[in-house]
Amino acid sequence: MSKPISRYPVPKLEDLPQDIREKMLAVQGKAGFIPNVFVTLAHRPDEFRAFFAYHDALMLRDSGLTKAEREMIVVATSGVNHCPYCVIAHGAILRIYAKNPYVADEVAIDHHKADISERQQAMLDFAVKLARTPESIAESDRAKLKQQGFSEEDIWDIGGITALFALSNRMAHLIEMRANDEFYLLGRVQTAKK
Amino acid sequence: MSKPISRYPVPKLEDLPQDIREKMLAVQGKAGFIPNVFVTLAHRPDEFRAFFAYHDALMLRDSGLTKAEREMIVVATSGVNHCPYCVIAHGAILRIYAKNPYVADEVAIDHHKADISERQQAMLDFAVKLARTPESIAESDRAKLKQQGFSEEDIWDIGGITALFALSNRMAHLIEMRANDEFYLLGRVQTAKK
Amino acid sequence: MSKPISRYPVPKLEDLPQDIREKMLAVQGKAGFIPNVFVTLAHRPDEFRAFFAYHDALMLRDSGLTKAEREMIVVATSGVNHCPYCVIAHGAILRIYAKNPYVADEVAIDHHKADISERQQAMLDFAVKLARTPESIAESDRAKLKQQGFSEEDIWDIGGITALFALSNRMAHLIEMRANDEFYLLGRVQTAKK
Amino acid sequence: MSKPISRYPVPKLEDLPQDIREKMLAVQGKAGFIPNVFVTLAHRPDEFRAFFAYHDALMLRDSGLTKAEREMIVVATSGVNHCPYCVIAHGAILRIYAKNPYVADEVAIDHHKADISERQQAMLDFAVKLARTPESIAESDRAKLKQQGFSEEDIWDIGGITALFALSNRMAHLIEMRANDEFYLLGRVQTAKK
Amino acid sequence: MSKPISRYPVPKLEDLPQDIREKMLAVQGKAGFIPNVFVTLAHRPDEFRAFFAYHDALMLRDSGLTKAEREMIVVATSGVNHCPYCVIAHGAILRIYAKNPYVADEVAIDHHKADISERQQAMLDFAVKLARTPESIAESDRAKLKQQGFSEEDIWDIGGITALFALSNRMAHLIEMRANDEFYLLGRVQTAKK
Amino acid sequence: MSKPISRYPVPKLEDLPQDIREKMLAVQGKAGFIPNVFVTLAHRPDEFRAFFAYHDALMLRDSGLTKAEREMIVVATSGVNHCPYCVIAHGAILRIYAKNPYVADEVAIDHHKADISERQQAMLDFAVKLARTPESIAESDRAKLKQQGFSEEDIWDIGGITALFALSNRMAHLIEMRANDEFYLLGRVQTAKK
Repeated sequence: MSKPISRYPVPKLEDLPQDIREKMLAVQGKAGFIPNVFVTLAHRPDEFRAFFAYHDALMLRDSGLTKAEREMIVVATSGVNHCPYCVIAHGAILRIYAKNPYVADEVAIDHHKADISERQQAMLDFAVKLARTPESIAESDRAKLKQQGFSEEDIWDIGGITALFALSNRMAHLIEMRANDEFYLLGRVQTAKK
Repeated sequence: MSKPISRYPVPKLEDLPQDIREKMLAVQGKAGFIPNVFVTLAHRPDEFRAFFAYHDALMLRDSGLTKAEREMIVVATSGVNHCPYCVIAHGAILRIYAKNPYVADEVAIDHHKADISERQQAMLDFAVKLARTPESIAESDRAKLKQQGFSEEDIWDIGGITALFALSNRMAHLIEMRANDEFYLLGRVQTAKK
Repeated sequence: MSKPISRYPVPKLEDLPQDIREKMLAVQGKAGFIPNVFVTLAHRPDEFRAFFAYHDALMLRDSGLTKAEREMIVVATSGVNHCPYCVIAHGAILRIYAKNPYVADEVAIDHHKADISERQQAMLDFAVKLARTPESIAESDRAKLKQQGFSEEDIWDIGGITALFALSNRMAHLIEMRANDEFYLLGRVQTAKK
Repeated sequence: MSKPISRYPVPKLEDLPQDIREKMLAVQGKAGFIPNVFVTLAHRPDEFRAFFAYHDALMLRDSGLTKAEREMIVVATSGVNHCPYCVIAHGAILRIYAKNPYVADEVAIDHHKADISERQQAMLDFAVKLARTPESIAESDRAKLKQQGFSEEDIWDIGGITALFALSNRMAHLIEMRANDEFYLLGRVQTAKK
Repeated sequence: MSKPISRYPVPKLEDLPQDIREKMLAVQGKAGFIPNVFVTLAHRPDEFRAFFAYHDALMLRDSGLTKAEREMIVVATSGVNHCPYCVIAHGAILRIYAKNPYVADEVAIDHHKADISERQQAMLDFAVKLARTPESIAESDRAKLKQQGFSEEDIWDIGGITALFALSNRMAHLIEMRANDEFYLLGRVQTAKK
Repeated sequence: MSKPISRYPVPKLEDLPQDIREKMLAVQGKAGFIPNVFVTLAHRPDEFRAFFAYHDALMLRDSGLTKAEREMIVVATSGVNHCPYCVIAHGAILRIYAKNPYVADEVAIDHHKADISERQQAMLDFAVKLARTPESIAESDRAKLKQQGFSEEDIWDIGGITALFALSNRMAHLIEMRANDEFYLLGRVQTAKK
């Protein structure tokens, strides 16, 4: 790939504050590479810290949503926001969590046609609506979620993840963040081999 | 007003973690009341902390944008997102920073017609476009900002504030956050008396 | 404010036809100032007369809608049409008629979240839909109004006011009409003091 | 045709106020029939009078626009507003004024492809933009009109006609006004025979 | 008319392959003239053959839809796609099949207000939705068609015709195809004389 | 995958007309499997024949566009039409023709950010505009293509492919066509191994 991973300067690992460097090394140890969202956002350490604190608060908390469902929200809303980094990177994470090599592309292109449960359809209907026209969320939209068994706290989770990636998609478009090559294939081959 | 300030439980001050309670008391000391965004988001302390850390990172940093300009971005993008809390609360803050009782309503309704500088028009054009159709930001949009003297770091600030309030507007719509009565009049009377 | 109140020549009071001058002096006697819509539209006396004849026919007639409700329609539809003059001037009139310093900003920004009755919500849903996509009004939209007790004549009033301000908003955008400074504060202080 | 010409009561000629009846008889004498806009709007005499006063003020005044050009604006903006009455009735009038049996259908469907002058293209670009998204009219739109030789007063005419038919299209949608059968064929046969 | 019927070269009848020339002479024998869609698309003989094969497969097959209903779909979807050739040419064919001089203009401008059956309204609702936002067709849309008695094969016909004219409208816009003068009057005079 | 590949009956290979069966066996011999577009469209043999005749006329002809570029058009326009079958199947074909495991996902999500040439950007800008709002194509859009060296015949190819997949996307949404599992991985692994 010839395009840079960000329009902004990308700091070297050794020039970063200790806490940020450690966070990166931890993710590298786990994933085998450092996702570009870490290295590109590190250009602004305070915003970096706040972003990942927000991310972890929503994505790692105990929730009525599985981790695969949370990634589905990220992929579906990033899809309607046409955000390459978030669709490609979180598509990979979704494939891994869902142990399903097909679902990420389906959800990114058109969640209505995806091979997912009715409950997940309702969840993504709500998320996509909040993502693109936040003012249009109405009582009837909440009612559809409750009919599928989502609690008020689950609805906060759905909305909160959508809101965080509304921020994230805009930052990625702003700096023209590019996805690591590794993400394109992750979760496709192993599962497909089964 | 008969509607509650949030669809979710609003914690009592005494039940909150120490750091959050202190942050609230500090803002109360300064403003004379606690803006509802503090008490309503405190329902989720970790998200509260991340939100205000992000907010302060962008709104309090040294920047090529004045504080009034940063609030203009909040008001204009919250206007196109039809977010009552953010328009009303940040409209008040904008009136105070700009020492101008008219500009907030103008910017909220239609920034193109507002009595602001060409540079500020360009800034809000960019912000509003990123707010509603993030995928549509192109090189030509950045070029217009640079023609007005904005640096690359200023552009990050404009985009970052827009992105943060993309999150904030969605949270406010999600929980149906309402503005404190105090905000409606703030910055209108004193300045108008001059 | 440095911007002119219209892109077109603004006639002097003494140069106007007798009937138009008298209409202006009457409103000045009542309001304490002449709203800019009078002085700017007077550039074309025949259109001025027709506009205010239409206005008075709808806004002063006996109707199933209160005067506050009629102003709500003006504010909500002018809000979605992003018309500064109409939102600011009629927002002031709405505050006065409704004896409520909050409702105008709420209705202008997002009527769905405003602290108004279900009946008024339905009225504004219909008005806003007719304002932006007139072709989309269907039998089901009229049915919702009738469920809230609106008669066929009330529906004509709702639609007629929306139609008149569709005209008015376009004229205001066309000539870049600006609101008088007085409107920004009208109906805010007195009521808030109660 | 089985559908009524209005959802509202249509007054009998003999029950109407003298001035309105005379206006109708005059148009009948000239056209050979009474266009439905007269009989349907007569349900509300005051609004009727104001509407036709506004209409005549714009459509009959001395102007830099020919009468055919004014009707083009009506047809093009009513086309994008999907208003059957206005497209069909004013399409007929346009065919007659322009002595051209093709131009009305072309302008109603897509004015960009119509066989009209560059000047008229610019005029309709402005009108259609003001008709659907009034807030989007900018200095650059006015500049394009001036490049085609339109004066500031001509621009008011273009905008004023657009604004009036924004009102008219909404009234026609509201009451489901239907066009007289006569309009469908008017201006097609005679000219085609040449 | 001064504009050419296509932006691309229009082949002479004698230069065309035998099968294409024969197809044109056949339609000329029947209609009295060769519709411009034949002469303009003949610039690319292979695409010409495929287009008319597709057209005949859908428009001439045994179907639960009458030929007038199939033309209604063409006119309604070409109307929302603002395609002059298809609205004008197929409007004429619709008038002839339906033996109704009014229905084509009504359907082209706003099918919701047209004087057609409830079944036909449902058919056009589906077609217009598929035409403009194909991704939005949902189970509930199919259910509405079935409630009106349409079979699954009928739904394929409705969708297939819509899809074919999605192609056709784009080709017509691409090459700026113009309608023959004859179409404007076809089916208007004879029927009107009855 | 539990969802069927079409809402309509899928004919057995042995029940198909000879020419269609042979076409399928040919593609199976080449690709190793029969893409679902063949088996699902075969429900209507005449439409099947016309569709593939059209497809081959555009996709196999000598052209100023490479085969990879033609597939880019399919992927980009199917992306904005949210069509799972076409994005996934043609994404695979694009990866193979372009010998590039990344480009298909990039083009499907947001072609503006994709790592492609300026010429290809212009080509996709035109295609995507024609795909979603065919009426908006103007002389200035054609001029941009010519500046990048595209000939008039190339522009017909770009528009023709866009038009054909406007049809194809609508058929796929109509019958809820699903992509073969094989497509998800095709062109990813081999190239990535280089």
